[in-house]
Amino acid sequence: MAGWGMAFLAALLLAAAPAVAPSPAEIVAAAPAEAWQAVPAEELLVLDFAGARRLVVQLAPAFAPTHVANVRTLVRDGWYARHAAIVRVQDNYVVQWGDPTGKVPLPQGVAHRPNDGYERPGLPPGFRALPFADSYGARVGHAGGWAVATDGTAHWLPHCPGMVGVGREMPPDTGSGAELYLVIGHGPRQLDRNIALVGRVLEGAEALAALPRGTGALGFYESADQHVKLVSARLGADMPQAERPRFEVMRTDGAAFAAWVDARANRRDPFFVRPAGGADICNLLPPIRPALSR
Amino acid sequence: MAGWGMAFLAALLLAAAPAVAPSPAEIVAAAPAEAWQAVPAEELLVLDFAGARRLVVQLAPAFAPTHVANVRTLVRDGWYARHAAIVRVQDNYVVQWGDPTGKVPLPQGVAHRPNDGYERPGLPPGFRALPFADSYGARVGHAGGWAVATDGTAHWLPHCPGMVGVGREMPPDTGSGAELYLVIGHGPRQLDRNIALVGRVLEGAEALAALPRGTGALGFYESADQHVKLVSARLGADMPQAERPRFEVMRTDGAAFAAWVDARANRRDPFFVRPAGGADICNLLPPIRPALSR
Repeated sequence: MAGWGMAFLAALLLAAAPAVAPSPAEIVAAAPAEAWQAVPAEELLVLDFAGARRLVVQLAPAFAPTHVANVRTLVRDGWYARHAAIVRVQDNYVVQWGDPTGKVPLPQGVAHRPNDGYERPGLPPGFRALPFADSYGARVGHAGGWAVATDGTAHWLPHCPGMVGVGREMPPDTGSGAELYLVIGHGPRQLDRNIALVGRVLEGAEALAALPRGTGALGFYESADQHVKLVSARLGADMPQAERPRFEVMRTDGAAFAAWVDARANRRDPFFVRPAGGADICNLLPPIRPALSR
Repeated sequence: MAGWGMAFLAALLLAAAPAVAPSPAEIVAAAPAEAWQAVPAEELLVLDFAGARRLVVQLAPAFAPTHVANVRTLVRDGWYARHAAIVRVQDNYVVQWGDPTGKVPLPQGVAHRPNDGYERPGLPPGFRALPFADSYGARVGHAGGWAVATDGTAHWLPHCPGMVGVGREMPPDTGSGAELYLVIGHGPRQLDRNIALVGRVLEGAEALAALPRGTGALGFYESADQHVKLVSARLGADMPQAERPRFEVMRTDGAAFAAWVDARANRRDPFFVRPAGGADICNLLPPIRPALSR
């Protein structure tokens, strides 16, 4: 790792004119193949909503194991495709989909109130803390290609734009996964450890974020005509290889990622007059790209 | 102030059942008239875009005096209504409007490259710091009904959803105000002190945030057909009183606001399992409401 890291940094310094520091986007574009890790087909969830709106999600079984298992069961049963639609779009907050009636029974094998999705014990393997403070009192950093927050004894995914979570009712309900939402606004970090996050969007968030806002309380659509049907829900592992979307996430343990974090927190590219010297975890979500054809 | 503040807190504690802490929304709903300040007509900017999309903005002359003066000159000249349209919608970032050709001359009296809009000296009157850390290395808090960031020697408005800023080219350009944008995603705080913010939205952000994302670089629309014309731009002070929108912002020096901040950072209402013990400045923007009819 150190080998290609140093070579990458040297190449980057040579490539950039001495007077012009590379922007975060330039660092991403220059990162070598080794800086990226493929998203496993087993973690891919492909949701096709009416209106040709495709959301490609990477599931996070390491962070919410039983909720993710529930999602897989609901997909394979065909439950989402039969029953789910977008029912809520609240501005600067969430797009949410589920069974509009709230009454359709769930398939066998869906766990009721799983208690392991709010946080996981200890630190995740390879956790690297950021040197920046967190307003929510956590330590924040990265591990295994994910942004992570921790209090030292447990860790969890932070609520940032593009994260996918599990709608629920009042505690001790933790949600089953039958109702999911996408964060579309300023990261509602107050939900950390209060709602199970099951993944993140790899592609397609903008099509959902541009839906009309619901005019009911909490952004719920007031008429069933406004619902956006979930037409198809598939797991990458179940799709023919040729149809399967392929994405890569930047490794969070490499030199390119470290250079990118540093450039995001200390913007030295010509547009900027004064770098901040810090950044919050929702502005430091690992870069994602479609896999290059081979 | 202390008098009504204590009475308000006592009333709130009595109103809420002992076992159930009030939510932030309940605190806002219960706040007395004295907890609110009217937005002065002189600071109102009413922008009507095609498709009945109205954006009501409160200008911030104390934070970007010359840029705000430029905006007023451009409104009164009729320049925006003749020339401006939404030309860019970048997901999780900004909606931007201006002259699509970039070539229409500006009216006389518009200052070129004003240098007083990035930050203001010292601390703003009545600044109250929050006890929470800021990931961007500033001290953050509130003054005069606004969220504010400071490094102790200067202060500025933080880039949060709903803030309105001044598009610009490369430094030393600071923008004139002819090109404006609305923040619609996770607060891009790296822009603090690098772009002049001229105000905040009081109403209507969701209609712009739901516009289709541009497919060109940086979210620019690729076809002029997609532009959303700015049909009318008016200052509140120039509107007949009956037509003038009336809004109130919660005072940031009162007990209701302090209770609201505390409840936002430490959610004790029944939905929450574990309060965060903190919040970031973009999740602590002062509550806004339409003025009650009298």
